[in-house]
Amino acid sequence: MPKRFFQHINQFTTITQQEFEQILPFFEVNQLKKKQLLVEGNTTCDTIHFVLEGCVHMYFIGENGTKRTIKFAIENWWISDFLAFFQGSHTDFYIQAVETTKVLSINAKNHDALLDKFPALEKYFRIIYQISYGASLNKFRYLFDYSKEQIYFHFVKEFPDFAQRVPQYLIASFLGLTPEYVSEIRKKHVLKPA
Amino acid sequence: MPKRFFQHINQFTTITQQEFEQILPFFEVNQLKKKQLLVEGNTTCDTIHFVLEGCVHMYFIGENGTKRTIKFAIENWWISDFLAFFQGSHTDFYIQAVETTKVLSINAKNHDALLDKFPALEKYFRIIYQISYGASLNKFRYLFDYSKEQIYFHFVKEFPDFAQRVPQYLIASFLGLTPEYVSEIRKKHVLKPA
Repeated sequence: MPKRFFQHINQFTTITQQEFEQILPFFEVNQLKKKQLLVEGNTTCDTIHFVLEGCVHMYFIGENGTKRTIKFAIENWWISDFLAFFQGSHTDFYIQAVETTKVLSINAKNHDALLDKFPALEKYFRIIYQISYGASLNKFRYLFDYSKEQIYFHFVKEFPDFAQRVPQYLIASFLGLTPEYVSEIRKKHVLKPA
Repeated sequence: MPKRFFQHINQFTTITQQEFEQILPFFEVNQLKKKQLLVEGNTTCDTIHFVLEGCVHMYFIGENGTKRTIKFAIENWWISDFLAFFQGSHTDFYIQAVETTKVLSINAKNHDALLDKFPALEKYFRIIYQISYGASLNKFRYLFDYSKEQIYFHFVKEFPDFAQRVPQYLIASFLGLTPEYVSEIRKKHVLKPA
C-alpha cells in the first residue's frame, strides 16, 4: 500500500526505494472506520496526514452549531490545518473519515527530522503546497463569481471521483449550498443532461 | 532594498550573503506606478513576484464585468496565480499596483534553475506556500462562518497595515462586501468603538 506514496513522491522529486524504506518509519499508519474522527477540534495541531486509501473531510463547527466542510482528501492528498501545524498552535478544525480510510500521519518533530535528513522532500512538499495554495485561489474565484448551479457543476467536472463517493450533504456543505438545492439541481440535470 | 529579501529568506532557511549575491541575478526588478498592471489577465502565467516596496492586488473580472480582488500583497509577500505558474498555463487573474510599487520577479525557467542551484530555497518556498495555503483554509472558514461585520473587523485586526493603506473599495471587494457597507460599519465603529 505505501507503494502509492512512493510513486506520489517520485512524481515531484526523486527518491530511491532504499531511501523510501528509511522515510517510512517517520510515519505512523492510522486506520479509520467510517465517521471516525482522525483529528478532534480545539486541540493542538501537530500532525499532517496523507491518505493511502479512503476519504476524509475537514470541517469546523459554525457559530450556529452547524458542521461546515472546507476540504476533502482522497488517495494521494494531504490534509491538516497546515497553518496551525506550522505554528504548533491550536486548531478549530475536525478531520473525519467519510468511508473506511487508511492514512499515513507524521508529527511535527518527525516532519522536521525527516526534512533535515531527506532534503529532496522539501521539493516534494514545496510543490504539494504550491499547487494546493494555487488551487485555493481559484476556489475563491469560483465561489465569488459563479452561480450556485455553476459551482456545483464545476465541482462535479473537476472532481468526478468525489462526486461519486461523497454523500450529497457533504458536497453541499463544502460548496456552501443546501442539500435540498444540490438534490434539486441533480434531478434537473438527470432530466435535462447538458 | 533587496536586503529585505535577504532577511526574509533567512527567516525560513539559511543562505549566506555571498549566496544571496548569486541568487539576485535570477530576478528582475519591476517598478510600477500606482494603478499600473504587473500582470494582464488572459496571458500565460510564467512569473512569480515578491513585493520589495508598495502594494499590489490580484483580481479577476467577473461574468458581470465587475473587478473582484482575491489577494493583496505588501512588503515581503509573494504574489502570482501559483497554479497556472506551476502548470505553465493561462491565468485569468490581473495583478495591479495599489500604490507606487517595486517587485522582484522571477520567471519559470529562472525559478527552476535557481532551485536546482540553491536547494536551501526549496525549504524557503515550502514554508511560504505552507503558510499561505494554511491561511487560505482559514479564510474559507471565516468567509463561511462570520457575519459581514465580523469579516470586516477580523480583517482589520489581522491585517492592520492593509486597512491603513488600501482604498476602502478594494477591501470591500476582497471581503465580498459593498463599499457602502464598509463605509457604514466604519462609521458605526467610529461612533461606538468596541
